[in-house]
Amino acid sequence: MAASLPATTLQLQSLVRPDQAVQLSLADVEVPEPGPTEVLIRIEAAPINPSDLGLLLAGADVSAGTVSGPAERPVVTAPLPDAAMRAMAGRVGTPMPVGNEGAGVVVAAGSAPAAQALLGKTVAAAGGGGMYAQYRCVDVLFCLELPAGMPAVDGASSFVNPMTALGIVETMRLENHVAIVHTAAASNLGQMLNRLCLSEQIPLVNVVRRPEQEELLRSAGATYVCNSTAPDFMASLTAAVKETSATLAFDAVGGGRLASQILTCMEAAANVGNGYSRYGSAVHKQVYIYGSLDRGPTELTRNFGMAWGIGGWLLTPFLQKIGLEEIGRLRSQVAAGLTTTFASTYTDEVSLAGALTLDALKAYARQATGQKYLIRPSV
Amino acid sequence: MAASLPATTLQLQSLVRPDQAVQLSLADVEVPEPGPTEVLIRIEAAPINPSDLGLLLAGADVSAGTVSGPAERPVVTAPLPDAAMRAMAGRVGTPMPVGNEGAGVVVAAGSAPAAQALLGKTVAAAGGGGMYAQYRCVDVLFCLELPAGMPAVDGASSFVNPMTALGIVETMRLENHVAIVHTAAASNLGQMLNRLCLSEQIPLVNVVRRPEQEELLRSAGATYVCNSTAPDFMASLTAAVKETSATLAFDAVGGGRLASQILTCMEAAANVGNGYSRYGSAVHKQVYIYGSLDRGPTELTRNFGMAWGIGGWLLTPFLQKIGLEEIGRLRSQVAAGLTTTFASTYTDEVSLAGALTLDALKAYARQATGQKYLIRPSV
Repeated sequence: MAASLPATTLQLQSLVRPDQAVQLSLADVEVPEPGPTEVLIRIEAAPINPSDLGLLLAGADVSAGTVSGPAERPVVTAPLPDAAMRAMAGRVGTPMPVGNEGAGVVVAAGSAPAAQALLGKTVAAAGGGGMYAQYRCVDVLFCLELPAGMPAVDGASSFVNPMTALGIVETMRLENHVAIVHTAAASNLGQMLNRLCLSEQIPLVNVVRRPEQEELLRSAGATYVCNSTAPDFMASLTAAVKETSATLAFDAVGGGRLASQILTCMEAAANVGNGYSRYGSAVHKQVYIYGSLDRGPTELTRNFGMAWGIGGWLLTPFLQKIGLEEIGRLRSQVAAGLTTTFASTYTDEVSLAGALTLDALKAYARQATGQKYLIRPSV
Repeated sequence: MAASLPATTLQLQSLVRPDQAVQLSLADVEVPEPGPTEVLIRIEAAPINPSDLGLLLAGADVSAGTVSGPAERPVVTAPLPDAAMRAMAGRVGTPMPVGNEGAGVVVAAGSAPAAQALLGKTVAAAGGGGMYAQYRCVDVLFCLELPAGMPAVDGASSFVNPMTALGIVETMRLENHVAIVHTAAASNLGQMLNRLCLSEQIPLVNVVRRPEQEELLRSAGATYVCNSTAPDFMASLTAAVKETSATLAFDAVGGGRLASQILTCMEAAANVGNGYSRYGSAVHKQVYIYGSLDRGPTELTRNFGMAWGIGGWLLTPFLQKIGLEEIGRLRSQVAAGLTTTFASTYTDEVSLAGALTLDALKAYARQATGQKYLIRPSV
């Protein structure tokens, strides 16, 4: 370990307490010594993704949160509804480090050549969590060396969103679909998927909720944009699905009727001109729910025949399924497009302590489209 | 064509009229001459299965039905709700013959040896519909010769329920599950599945709604029976799922929360003793909806992690997937068990005209557990 390194690092932790509250704080934890194949990264930038919020907030009622302690060591406390408390039973009393991905400079490395080769380099990292910290030790397997001169901030979001966008496209190919419907399509991920589909000439039907989101996507080259709050939503989605032959959807909303509406439109598109079929069309229609912007129940009207499926979709099991070689190929594709197809933008930058102000917390907990926070732990 | 055959046959038809009503009647249609590989069957017995009701009733409000015409030629008229009328747009004005399966005596045969071989034999038949008729012409491919001396009534239900029960078990094997949860488990199909699983030593968790249905299944040898209306339903289902390692369910109910509850119990069983997992267990949990006893929306609470799927399941596409050779193997299994594992029982027998009385119509439209109608067209 280099002499210039501190003995401890600040680490953002989420703790579910027995009194039915979540407590967010900054803990001093020991800076670990890298194992042979590990490197120690001084984290310079780590995004707050929707997929971090489940672990961070534990389903707490953020609007009832309070903050105490000094400004540089805030302690946030927020109550947990009964259902959230039941779901979190397994983590009561265990402080959890948070943060799925980030980027920074390698300041120490294990003895393996692959680890040594990264010393002094700026790398992106994902895997194992705990990136909301000043220092984080990770295996070189989970590191992506950034091109020389690229700042850490450009690589901070190089894993979750890019690999999810690629995972959506690969799932389409693996399951023999030819086009994709995507909801919450104006999100950072949605805009990325739009760029990816444009570059790979894959028809993409973007479902959004607001006129300005339609504008945003159209100005980014999207051909099919449907507004779910418009009176003609079902007709416009059916037309887009018919035109693209989309029989696969990725839904980040989860709750409510949107998934059901998509299946209904796909079924209507499949039946155009085909007369009556007693059990509906034979075309298999699939929706994967990969997010939960609406945490309410999913309601399926089942007016879309019998050839349909809905299921959960998660990046990690998908990557396990495709295997290391394919993951490597996708990672290279990401590396080549970090400032173009796979670029992320942030609306707010905060320090570790800044992430634990009530204003910031309420803002990123809302998961508002277009708003994205970046934590700068070492700034 | 043998001289003794009539020129016309009575055929039960369902017609969706432009005035938003369904009309059920008996039509005189020409008795067809069998093609080379076809046989003409004098239908002696044909069951009314839940899977016939969609085509027959077209979603009509049977409680508001009226009947006119002479007793031997009743004409039933029942109004269609708006949603049903929209769904039936493709069949307005086209009379549809009804009846998925039946059995009877081959009274004429085409020139092919396979057809000639069945002349005078009692056969079960399925495929193409229209079995609610005095005479029906079908390809020999869709015929199953009954053992010598077996009456037609014993073979009337030799296809839909037996092949569905076998299809459920085959799906379990094909998708690498080791046990099955089945809802509406006291139905004719449910009892059959119970016998099949007992004989093949497959753990089956039977979900029913009433204490007497629990009794029925336990007295038929069922080990796991859970009553969805009992206060301890979730606990008892979780325990049964844990003990059997069931990660697959076949649900005939469709609407409401039952499918969601099953997934919740499977997830709870998977997580017992495994502590907190942020995205839930990695065990894939699957529910197939193959019926619609509750036609209301399916509500998914999504408190069962991300490794789950729900989808429609239908016998015909399943059979297409497994192919002719495998179908043949399953058909032989059915033939060998027609009076044991695959036996059906009927609570009511009616003529073609008797199926079109309001009392009968309301009774079989209700799909009450344990009640099953058999049409005897030639009696």
